[in-house]
Amino acid sequence: MAKNKPKSTTELKQLGKKIVHSIDKGKNPYIELPVRSISNIIFDQKIKTLKLGDKSAKRFFFNVAHAKKFVQTVEVAKLTYNLLEEGKHASLRDVFYMAKRTIPETKINLVDDQSESDSVIEDLELITNCSREQLNVNANKMGSVAGRVIIKDGKDTINWAKLGSGGWSIPSNVENIKFKNITAKYVLYMEKAAVWERLHEDKFWDKQKCIIMSSQGQTTRGIRRLLQRLNEEANLPIYVLTDFDPWGFYIYSVLKFGSISLAHIAEKQAIPDVKFLGITADDIEKYDLKKHLIKLNEKDLARLKQMAKYEWFEKNKDWQRQFKIMKELESKAEIQALSSKGISFISEKYLPEKISKKEWLD
Amino acid sequence: MAKNKPKSTTELKQLGKKIVHSIDKGKNPYIELPVRSISNIIFDQKIKTLKLGDKSAKRFFFNVAHAKKFVQTVEVAKLTYNLLEEGKHASLRDVFYMAKRTIPETKINLVDDQSESDSVIEDLELITNCSREQLNVNANKMGSVAGRVIIKDGKDTINWAKLGSGGWSIPSNVENIKFKNITAKYVLYMEKAAVWERLHEDKFWDKQKCIIMSSQGQTTRGIRRLLQRLNEEANLPIYVLTDFDPWGFYIYSVLKFGSISLAHIAEKQAIPDVKFLGITADDIEKYDLKKHLIKLNEKDLARLKQMAKYEWFEKNKDWQRQFKIMKELESKAEIQALSSKGISFISEKYLPEKISKKEWLD
Repeated sequence: MAKNKPKSTTELKQLGKKIVHSIDKGKNPYIELPVRSISNIIFDQKIKTLKLGDKSAKRFFFNVAHAKKFVQTVEVAKLTYNLLEEGKHASLRDVFYMAKRTIPETKINLVDDQSESDSVIEDLELITNCSREQLNVNANKMGSVAGRVIIKDGKDTINWAKLGSGGWSIPSNVENIKFKNITAKYVLYMEKAAVWERLHEDKFWDKQKCIIMSSQGQTTRGIRRLLQRLNEEANLPIYVLTDFDPWGFYIYSVLKFGSISLAHIAEKQAIPDVKFLGITADDIEKYDLKKHLIKLNEKDLARLKQMAKYEWFEKNKDWQRQFKIMKELESKAEIQALSSKGISFISEKYLPEKISKKEWLD
Repeated sequence: MAKNKPKSTTELKQLGKKIVHSIDKGKNPYIELPVRSISNIIFDQKIKTLKLGDKSAKRFFFNVAHAKKFVQTVEVAKLTYNLLEEGKHASLRDVFYMAKRTIPETKINLVDDQSESDSVIEDLELITNCSREQLNVNANKMGSVAGRVIIKDGKDTINWAKLGSGGWSIPSNVENIKFKNITAKYVLYMEKAAVWERLHEDKFWDKQKCIIMSSQGQTTRGIRRLLQRLNEEANLPIYVLTDFDPWGFYIYSVLKFGSISLAHIAEKQAIPDVKFLGITADDIEKYDLKKHLIKLNEKDLARLKQMAKYEWFEKNKDWQRQFKIMKELESKAEIQALSSKGISFISEKYLPEKISKKEWLD
């Protein structure tokens, strides 16, 4: 149960009060919020992060085009308020099912499709200036972590260095964990669980005094937030290890600059300190990986072209060079190609060498 | 480093010795192994598990059609032997890169595609009668576990009841963990991580004296083996919780009877004790979920039809009834539909009620 009311509860209450106030005064109640369409997404050069522009819109109750969305917003606000009051968390899918009720004496469902309740949750993030996680609505759980950190989570004290071969399973929501003791000097984040297991078996985090973290494929919100908290609260640099392909580069891009689909909270989620450790075009030359190149397919090529034009990469010479070489090679390379040099080449040579020589891309 | 030589090392050595023996005698060296094609896969009614039939084949070195596969088998056998000797583990992808070398003075790669080294690993499972994991080749890592269990993994003692909101991240290989203390009465395995987080937040495993385990989507080999070990070594019943759809049913089917693609080791992986807890057609009626049904698409329908004909379901009246109702409803239902009854309905009412009334399908 929530003891100290969190900010999100106060904000949701505020939203309700405003609406009640309008009704009491006999006015048409409305909710004002920033426009989330692509036309209102900008890249802020100063803070090097995607964010929303200044355009905002009002959503009225007495407006045929707005009424349904207005009611959905109030309903989902109520649901999240109740979650906060009960100290419970729900997934987006749960919220959908909870909101999907038939309006009495009609045949109309409040929501018919999850995209509707999802969209309202994003609105509420803007209205309350709280993240979905602060509204107790969780994203999907994924990923593992190990390293020189002791945390406190609820009543449990967990030492990330003493969890056997599995490591700690990262929850979808990391708002409430507390860092008790950190003796790591940096965080290494990788896209592949198999690479994590390799480094973990080699006790890489112990020898290198660091933290190793991975998801499988996309970086979940729980992982992004955990990386961000380790960066902000413990000043740890974050290094990213992915394949040499457009998708690997984009994993870095999202962590560092924010994602287009979540531009409305990019500013809150971006971690400007993130560095890209590899695999780079230079590694392919240096570590003799040419033999293990894989031909780029059409989708890869299209993605590469698109990425090279992103505002945040456009004037970055180092990154443009990577894009150019990838295009010339017409090829990608996987992290695991390093295994051709020996199973522990990555943990004994590649990574220690790159980190000590500061061979990263920024 | 391996202290007591594992069985897999001995078996691999045996394979090598046989080949050397043939060479010494001036004979054409060969490797004999069971045929893995669909024509040799049978469902054993007695043990209720998929398995391979009696057909076997010989792979000769001096045979143009066999030579490459013969050499690949010997090469990968050597790689896994080295892994075992070094006490290290590799992923299938690693094995591919390690095996992908050019034969000296030719332009021929030993393997060109991962499917070739994967296939050889499956052969080696049969030749050595050891699982891939016992050969130190790991599948992908996925999933979380929490509950009333203390394990020992390497030097670490890990209490699955004291891992905060995250739980223990299940490694890809669970051969070497030891169960020190189990006070759980059963294992609840679910396909969705979000449902796991719901039950974990409600301390379901504590109140119900059990273990909760989940992956995300497919059940990995690490999870299957962990469930199997908990079943065999601690006699715990395994209950499966999935969506009411053909894919959810298939998750149960694979756990209980083995999978067609891994029929060559199904006998070793199947857990005949597994019970299907839900969601069932009866739940939809009883818990008033009709409103939350989702139309089956063509792929779902095709899968449903296919599954109803599987030998192990064909004569099972209870399952045929489920398939029939699903077909009549032309609909599926998700676990999360239970959230429409309240966020903790699943942990406070649905599951305790079903388990205490033994309302499962076998």
